[in-house]
Amino acid sequence: MTAPRGSELDRIAREAPFVAALGLELDRVDAGTCESVLEVRPDHLQQDGYVHAGVLATMADHTAGAAAASVMAEDRRVLTAEFKIMLLQPARAQRLRCVAKVLRAGRRLSFVESEVFGTTGESVRLVAKASVTIAIVERASG
Amino acid sequence: MTAPRGSELDRIAREAPFVAALGLELDRVDAGTCESVLEVRPDHLQQDGYVHAGVLATMADHTAGAAAASVMAEDRRVLTAEFKIMLLQPARAQRLRCVAKVLRAGRRLSFVESEVFGTTGESVRLVAKASVTIAIVERASG
Amino acid sequence: MTAPRGSELDRIAREAPFVAALGLELDRVDAGTCESVLEVRPDHLQQDGYVHAGVLATMADHTAGAAAASVMAEDRRVLTAEFKIMLLQPARAQRLRCVAKVLRAGRRLSFVESEVFGTTGESVRLVAKASVTIAIVERASG
Amino acid sequence: MTAPRGSELDRIAREAPFVAALGLELDRVDAGTCESVLEVRPDHLQQDGYVHAGVLATMADHTAGAAAASVMAEDRRVLTAEFKIMLLQPARAQRLRCVAKVLRAGRRLSFVESEVFGTTGESVRLVAKASVTIAIVERASG
Repeated sequence: MTAPRGSELDRIAREAPFVAALGLELDRVDAGTCESVLEVRPDHLQQDGYVHAGVLATMADHTAGAAAASVMAEDRRVLTAEFKIMLLQPARAQRLRCVAKVLRAGRRLSFVESEVFGTTGESVRLVAKASVTIAIVERASG
Repeated sequence: MTAPRGSELDRIAREAPFVAALGLELDRVDAGTCESVLEVRPDHLQQDGYVHAGVLATMADHTAGAAAASVMAEDRRVLTAEFKIMLLQPARAQRLRCVAKVLRAGRRLSFVESEVFGTTGESVRLVAKASVTIAIVERASG
Repeated sequence: MTAPRGSELDRIAREAPFVAALGLELDRVDAGTCESVLEVRPDHLQQDGYVHAGVLATMADHTAGAAAASVMAEDRRVLTAEFKIMLLQPARAQRLRCVAKVLRAGRRLSFVESEVFGTTGESVRLVAKASVTIAIVERASG
Repeated sequence: MTAPRGSELDRIAREAPFVAALGLELDRVDAGTCESVLEVRPDHLQQDGYVHAGVLATMADHTAGAAAASVMAEDRRVLTAEFKIMLLQPARAQRLRCVAKVLRAGRRLSFVESEVFGTTGESVRLVAKASVTIAIVERASG
């Protein structure tokens, strides 16, 4: 993914240490949508060998933030206000793909949905779905 | 924290690679409550220097699972069905503490709340609050 | 909508006094989906003339329960465990339509999404979206 | 409850037709908290004789809005952005009481929690708990 250097999208894609450490990569951004991918590693798992809900949540939240940033004014930044995630089935997968779509973009709040798909071989399954409320704030403000 | 070897609590505390990599530690478990702690590291942050929502979510979810496990039958295990987290304020902190409490323990579903506090020097602030639905499932089942 | 007398769907459609008083009607049920309609009345509004969030929530929840009931075993009934609803925009409408779809039907839990559309003249807008966790329980149990 | 005529709190308490039809009454308001009461009627129930989740949701949402209004600037009004409600146990009760507390009051967003208690004779039980995100908007704006 390429975004103008220093833009909010570029910052989201490149300047978030937690998602870099996780191995999460933004893959594609269009107006109001964003996709990301993650190769599942052993240190992403919980005690039963499934991908930890926290990994799925991070992916859903971060990708939602990028989708919201893709349709907002340039001098703004995004902050997650809240999100809910449903773990539809235990996630055993080699690779995860997240697709985030803006349901409603407001001046101060955007509502975004993120779907997380798990891929193992040729099987692709929806493993989690999140709904995310993003606050659109001034770039300078704390 | 000590729990019988091989118990569900012990597995949650010691056998979840993602939370071990994160540095999250279960600190105290009583019937229906659990506390955990996390020293904030640079790789826990998002693009503005705050703790990433995914870190707070992982902490809230995992600690909730342990709280639910502390009041269920021995031959069961926990799986998160869904959770919601509110990011009450941007989290700049040196250390995080999460306190999870079971609101209602059922045979098949438990409802748990998790509060995450951020500490910087002597200041302690509630930075996030989550509500978590935990499915109580048979230990052998997939 | 027609469902066998005494079936869970029939009970949901005909034996819930609150939704009858509200004027909510189940309109169509297929395996895993359900639609309902509501003519907006003055007593559905809040203090600014919009449809009250509680009306939208009732519609989203009840229609989700019917969708879950449409794909479960016959001797079961549905109980909402939790739901989240996003109010995407203030709802001024003459008529509401809700479309609920099961994302994942389990033996003990089903995850359902409900979209509520507001119609005024020829304009149709998505005004709310909910995600609902439905517990599937034995019919006799309390 | 008494609030200055024409204030946002007064409007919430007296000018919402849906909550009036439901029989919901704001009982007490302090800075950042609000309580409401509801006598359960037959037309509040669902198909199994429990209070309908939509009634509990309406109560939780409306009381949360009043709590948020109690600590905001005078020329503002409240709009619910989203809420989640957990139905902790089937609600059979003669009377419901809701207690809403502001967790964090912001200039543009407030986070509120609502607990709904069911009373039957001398027994009082927590039957539902909600977390609510309230948008604080200008009074004139649409």
